[in-house]
Amino acid sequence: MINKLVEKIKKTEAPIVVGLDPMMKFIPEHITKAAFAEHGETLEGAAEAIWQYNKAIVDNIYDLIPAVKPQIAMYEQFGIPGLVAYKKTIEYCKSKDLVVIGDIKRGDIGSTSEAYAVGHMGKVQVGSNSFYGFDEDFATLAPYMGSDTINPFKKVCQEEKKGLFILVKTSNPSSGEFQDRLIDGRPLYEWVAEKVVEWGSDFMGDSYSYIGAVVGATYPEMGKVLREIMPKSFILVPGYGAQGGKGADLVHFFNKDGLGAIVNSSRGIIAAHQQAQYAEIGAANFADASRQAVIDMREDIKSALAGK
Amino acid sequence: MINKLVEKIKKTEAPIVVGLDPMMKFIPEHITKAAFAEHGETLEGAAEAIWQYNKAIVDNIYDLIPAVKPQIAMYEQFGIPGLVAYKKTIEYCKSKDLVVIGDIKRGDIGSTSEAYAVGHMGKVQVGSNSFYGFDEDFATLAPYMGSDTINPFKKVCQEEKKGLFILVKTSNPSSGEFQDRLIDGRPLYEWVAEKVVEWGSDFMGDSYSYIGAVVGATYPEMGKVLREIMPKSFILVPGYGAQGGKGADLVHFFNKDGLGAIVNSSRGIIAAHQQAQYAEIGAANFADASRQAVIDMREDIKSALAGK
Repeated sequence: MINKLVEKIKKTEAPIVVGLDPMMKFIPEHITKAAFAEHGETLEGAAEAIWQYNKAIVDNIYDLIPAVKPQIAMYEQFGIPGLVAYKKTIEYCKSKDLVVIGDIKRGDIGSTSEAYAVGHMGKVQVGSNSFYGFDEDFATLAPYMGSDTINPFKKVCQEEKKGLFILVKTSNPSSGEFQDRLIDGRPLYEWVAEKVVEWGSDFMGDSYSYIGAVVGATYPEMGKVLREIMPKSFILVPGYGAQGGKGADLVHFFNKDGLGAIVNSSRGIIAAHQQAQYAEIGAANFADASRQAVIDMREDIKSALAGK
Repeated sequence: MINKLVEKIKKTEAPIVVGLDPMMKFIPEHITKAAFAEHGETLEGAAEAIWQYNKAIVDNIYDLIPAVKPQIAMYEQFGIPGLVAYKKTIEYCKSKDLVVIGDIKRGDIGSTSEAYAVGHMGKVQVGSNSFYGFDEDFATLAPYMGSDTINPFKKVCQEEKKGLFILVKTSNPSSGEFQDRLIDGRPLYEWVAEKVVEWGSDFMGDSYSYIGAVVGATYPEMGKVLREIMPKSFILVPGYGAQGGKGADLVHFFNKDGLGAIVNSSRGIIAAHQQAQYAEIGAANFADASRQAVIDMREDIKSALAGK
């Protein structure tokens, strides 16, 4: 799956992953209205609105991008119907040949991590049958509990040829509270990066490991160091756009081959119609605004990399 | 809810939380068979088996214990039907007046954490209606991303009078890879503990904070230090029984008032019928084995505390 991701990035010339993190306040009224007319102002109604919104955006941008990253929390908040919409979104994106990164940030002890791994990346056994659960292509994981979290996922990923992104240095303002603390003179996130290299070293694709890292665009200087520590790890870079990261901040996350990083934008793409620069496209054509935002983001990254 | 937890611990004289972490291999054949007869060997069949298994155990032990802790992974592995069983289990336990600790270990950036908080502890808004999602009484959270993870949960918990347990020192073998690393001469988990005190200091119940900590029974010496750092934080102690923790290891997790800790046992209770010492009770009477295991655990802790 890491090979597929690399190939698709080369083909689209867009090292971009679109975060499908729908919030009700992003969704144009005509979508919400239709969903509520059918299901009422219920969890099912909200889930239907999310699904129709996602579908319209995916239909309009899937040819431009290699991957999507649905954040499960945005679905889970609507309970079971929300999670049904999460699964439906994954299935639909895969039918459009998009690589799907499940942003689930799970992290637990061995037996529990095994259950998560089976439910998200593999097949669960029931009697003599087995079933895929959410079936994402990649998942994000939290490192606080160490190798016990990673190993069961790694095992399932090896069977399924799927991959992982481990949180190293996250994009949020308070990420430094623990991640930046110095251990033997180096910040914790560098020690996590060393482990990412170790975990991924015997699980290589053609040019990159199946085990990558999450490093926030909001910390470009740290990205530079982490790129060097993890030369063979793909870096998933959140924090572009709404969280403050700019194209010029991204160059250090890439290797000299122009690869090695994939930049996430969520509301910057899916809620583009609410931004001043795309306002004239209008809420009725929200998916066109998303398409234009993808094109602009692609150009922003391209010109930043050209000037590297 | 922390006050309710303390009251129930006093009343039952059992600082015990039962981990409702069902695995198919624990479930007696007569339960699985009946579930499969109705739903086939499907995810729905597995979910039905889990639910019937949980229900029988809860019915047989609810009067002895203050709380249960379902681990969401064990349900999530069976996809949507599994998550329906998770919700049903929570609702049923609450109807039996048990305190429910959702072991979800979420940890994410602000906007995402807000969505998780709303979906698990609070109400989500849909048009002019609002709905409770999974509605646990407490949730476990991962600290790697710092205050941005905790604050949105804290806000919802303050509205709902619910509580949190933050991972400090986890029970698993590899927990030391990052958690034990020294920062300014003290292990990372102590710095997390300091933060737990800070996060919980303005969110106090009668005698303990609404924000507690997770510290594994498998590391009793660390528990001793952490008890002193966090005198007003309730400690959720996993790792008793199957993971190797013993009654005598637990004494340091408690305060002089005999309170301040609640010890989790999962398979030690729910799969008691598979253990040699309860074998004669038999799989047909698995819930009786669970009841006996709760009583034995209560006595083990009681005698350990008496000898403190």
